[in-house]
Amino acid sequence: MSLDPVLDRIDADLDAALDRLLALLRIPSISTDPAYKDACQTAAEWLADDLKSLGIDAAVRPTTGHPMVVGHIDGPGPHVLFYGHYDVQPVDPLDLWDRDPFDPAIEDTPDGKVIRARGSSDDKGQLMTFVEACRAWKAVHGSLPCKITFFFEGEEESGSPSLIPFLEENAEELKADLVLICDTGLFESRVPAIVTRLRGLLGEEITLTGPNKDLHSGMFGGAAMNPIRVLSSILANLHGPDGTIQVPHFYDGVPELEPPIKAQWDALGFDHARFLGDVGLSDPAGESQHTALEMIWSRPTAEINGIIGGYTGDGFKTVLPSQASAKISFRLVGQQDPHEIRKHFRAWVEAQLPPDVSVRFDEHGASPAGQMETDHPAFEAARAVLSAEWGEEAAFTGCGGSIPIAGYFKTILGMESMLVGWGKDDDQIHSPNEKYDLESFHKGTRSWARILDAIATR
Amino acid sequence: MSLDPVLDRIDADLDAALDRLLALLRIPSISTDPAYKDACQTAAEWLADDLKSLGIDAAVRPTTGHPMVVGHIDGPGPHVLFYGHYDVQPVDPLDLWDRDPFDPAIEDTPDGKVIRARGSSDDKGQLMTFVEACRAWKAVHGSLPCKITFFFEGEEESGSPSLIPFLEENAEELKADLVLICDTGLFESRVPAIVTRLRGLLGEEITLTGPNKDLHSGMFGGAAMNPIRVLSSILANLHGPDGTIQVPHFYDGVPELEPPIKAQWDALGFDHARFLGDVGLSDPAGESQHTALEMIWSRPTAEINGIIGGYTGDGFKTVLPSQASAKISFRLVGQQDPHEIRKHFRAWVEAQLPPDVSVRFDEHGASPAGQMETDHPAFEAARAVLSAEWGEEAAFTGCGGSIPIAGYFKTILGMESMLVGWGKDDDQIHSPNEKYDLESFHKGTRSWARILDAIATR
Repeated sequence: MSLDPVLDRIDADLDAALDRLLALLRIPSISTDPAYKDACQTAAEWLADDLKSLGIDAAVRPTTGHPMVVGHIDGPGPHVLFYGHYDVQPVDPLDLWDRDPFDPAIEDTPDGKVIRARGSSDDKGQLMTFVEACRAWKAVHGSLPCKITFFFEGEEESGSPSLIPFLEENAEELKADLVLICDTGLFESRVPAIVTRLRGLLGEEITLTGPNKDLHSGMFGGAAMNPIRVLSSILANLHGPDGTIQVPHFYDGVPELEPPIKAQWDALGFDHARFLGDVGLSDPAGESQHTALEMIWSRPTAEINGIIGGYTGDGFKTVLPSQASAKISFRLVGQQDPHEIRKHFRAWVEAQLPPDVSVRFDEHGASPAGQMETDHPAFEAARAVLSAEWGEEAAFTGCGGSIPIAGYFKTILGMESMLVGWGKDDDQIHSPNEKYDLESFHKGTRSWARILDAIATR
Repeated sequence: MSLDPVLDRIDADLDAALDRLLALLRIPSISTDPAYKDACQTAAEWLADDLKSLGIDAAVRPTTGHPMVVGHIDGPGPHVLFYGHYDVQPVDPLDLWDRDPFDPAIEDTPDGKVIRARGSSDDKGQLMTFVEACRAWKAVHGSLPCKITFFFEGEEESGSPSLIPFLEENAEELKADLVLICDTGLFESRVPAIVTRLRGLLGEEITLTGPNKDLHSGMFGGAAMNPIRVLSSILANLHGPDGTIQVPHFYDGVPELEPPIKAQWDALGFDHARFLGDVGLSDPAGESQHTALEMIWSRPTAEINGIIGGYTGDGFKTVLPSQASAKISFRLVGQQDPHEIRKHFRAWVEAQLPPDVSVRFDEHGASPAGQMETDHPAFEAARAVLSAEWGEEAAFTGCGGSIPIAGYFKTILGMESMLVGWGKDDDQIHSPNEKYDLESFHKGTRSWARILDAIATR
C-alpha cells in the first residue's frame, strides 16, 4: 500500500476534515463540570459513529464517570493502540474569549490560519489528525496499514478517575505492540518531537509545630523557638551552592544522558536565554554542570511550591506562630524510586529538627519517571518520516512535566508509548482563546499517515 | 501628711471604690469601633467629673479622635503626671464570654474575688487604683501630697493616633518631674515589678520576585530560580548556630546587663521551664550564653512573624511562584539604632540575592528601646514601699514588648516614666472573660498611696 496517494487524499480532503473537526468542537464536553455530562456522552457517541463510518468496530463504553470510546480494526502491520481524549478544560473566565469557545471558526492571523475553539488543540484537534489519517488510508486503499485499536478517554482534564480500572478490566482487549499518543507539541513550535522521557513527581508537605499556640513575639520572642525559622533553615539546605539536591541518596538511579540524545538536544539550538527571558529571568538556576534543557528534561529537581506561616495579611503583627508549613515537589528521572526518596527526605527533615519542634508529613502523590525503549524500531522510523514531513530534524525529547497515561500503559499493560503531537507554544491550551494552527492539523494528519506507513513497512 | 490613715481609709472605702469602678466598666468604650464613639465620650466625661469631685481642675479635651482627659491639682511634693487609658479592646467573640462584658460583677473564684468585665484589668481597673489613692489622700488630709497632672487617653487600643499631636501641642501644660504609668503587671502574678526597660521594635517586610509570573514547575522547574528558595536561604542565615543574629552591626549599642540588675533578676527565681512549658516548649531558643529572662527582657531578637509564597491551599499545585515574602521584626535594646539596623539589614539581604531575583522592602515601624534612669530617687523609693505592701522584694524588670507611650514622654516631653501595675498573668486582657483580682485593685490602690508618700517625702 503506497503512501503518496494517501498524502494527496489528505490534502484534497482538508476542507471536509475541518468541517468534521468543527462539528466535534461544537460539543461542549467539559469533563470536570457535571452540567456538561450529557455533552461528554454526545462527544463520545459522535466519535464512535465517526469510527464506525470507517468500518471500525467501535462502541461507547460506559464507566462510573464519562464513557470511553474503544474501536478495533484489523490490518497487515503491527498492532498499535492510539490514545487521545475528547474532554476539554472549562472555559472561564468567559469574558476573556474573543468568541464563544464552542462556536469554532477558522480565523486568518498574521501567522496563518488557526482553528479557534476550546479543545481545538487539547485534544480534539490532535485526536482527529490520527482519525483523518486513517480515513485517508481507508479511502485510498480500502483498508488500514496496521492493526489499530482506538482508545479515547473523556476524563483526562479531570484526573482520569475511571482510567486505571478500565485498563485493568479490559487489559486483554487493549493490549497492542505499541501505544501512539497525540497530546504533546512541536519543540519550540517548529521541530517535530517524540517525547521519550517524562519526569516523575513526588509531592510532600511538611508542617512544623513549635509552641502549642501562637505567641506574642514581645512576650516570647528570643526564648521560644519559631517554626518559620526552623522551616527556612531546612528548606535552605535543600540545594547546595551548585544547585545539587542535598537529600541523601536522592541521586540513586539518576542516569547520565546518552551521548546520541545529548547530540540531538545540542542540535536543537535551544535558546535558553529566550526561554528564561520570556519569564523575566536570565540565569539557569539548576545544577550548574548541566544545560538548561537538561535541567528541565533529564535532571531531577526539588522545588518549594508553597510556604506559609504566621501573619501574612496587610500590615504587621508581631506573632510568633505555632506552625509553619511548606509544599515541596521533586521531579524524578531514570530509575529514581519515589518511595525511597520520600523515606530519605523525611529522615533528612527529622534529623534537622531542634528540640521542641515536631513535624507532620502529608504526601501528595508519587510517580516514577518514564523513559521509552527507543530501541523499538518504530521510534527511529517515526523520527525519519517526521523529519521529512516538517523539514526539520526530528528529535527524541523530554518533557519536564508528567503525562501519567504513558506510565499506566507501561505498568498496567506493559506497552511502550510513542508521544508525538503538533501543538505550538502559543496554542493557549487551558486558557481563553485556545487555537490550533491549520498547519498543525494538516501536517499532523500527514504525519500520522507517514508514521503508520513507516510502522507497517519496517 | 501621714500615710497610715490614708491606707486605713482605702481599706474602709473599698466597697464604694468598687462601685465607682463598676460604673466606669459599664460604659462600653471600645475605641477601635466607630459604633462606640459616644461611649468613649461618655467614659471621658465620667472620669473628668470624678476628678472634679476631688477638687481637681479637670476637663475633657477634644482631639480628632476620642478625647483626652486632663486634670491638674497642686501639692507640696514633686510634680508627677499619671497616665492611664479609658478605652478598651473589642469583645468578640462574644459567645466565649460567660457574662455580658459590660455588665461587670464581683465573682468568687477558688483563687479569690475577681472583678469580671472588659477593661477591668486593661486599663480601667488599674487607672482607678491611682484615682482611688488620690481620693483617700484628699479625704484624710484635704489635699494631695504631690502636685499631680492626670492624663487619660481614649485611643490606646487603637494605635493612639491623636497622642503625639496632643503631647506636642500641650507640651508645656503636661511637663512634670516624673511620669507614673499603670498599665503593666506583677512579675509572675506575685512580685511587684517596676518596668525600667522596654524593648524597641523594628518591622521589615521583604518581598522577593523571581520570574515575572507564576510558572509551572514541570515546565520550568530546575531552570528557573524559585524566590521561596532564595527567601528560605536568607532567613536561615538570620541566626547563627548559637542563636546570635548575623546582620552586620546588629549588636552595636547592645549593653551588658548591670550586675545589680542581674542580681535582682536571678533573685526572682524565674521558672523558665514553666514559662516555656505552658506553651509546649522546653528549650530557650535564643542566644545560648544568656538566660531565658535575659532573652526576653534585655537581649535583642530577630523573629520571622510571617512568610508566604506559592500555593498554600489544600492539596497540591506544582507552581513555581513569581514572589515570596516575609515579615521580620527585631526587638531592640539599649542604644541600638533602628534606622541603622534597617539600613544594615537591607544591605545584608541585597548582598544575598542571586541573579534574577529582586527585592522590595516595606517598613513597618521603628522605635528604639527605652531604658529608665533609675538613678531618679523615686525608683528606689518606690521599690522599697512596694516590697512592704506586697511582701515580696520588688524588682526593676524588663518588658519584652513595647509600650510606646513611655518613649513618647521621653522623646517629646523629656520625662522619665515609672511603669508599675498590678495585673496578673491570667487576667485575660484582650480576650474573653477579662478579670482583675480584687487583690490587685485593693493592694494596687494602697501601693499608689505609698508611692505618692514616698515621692513626696524623699
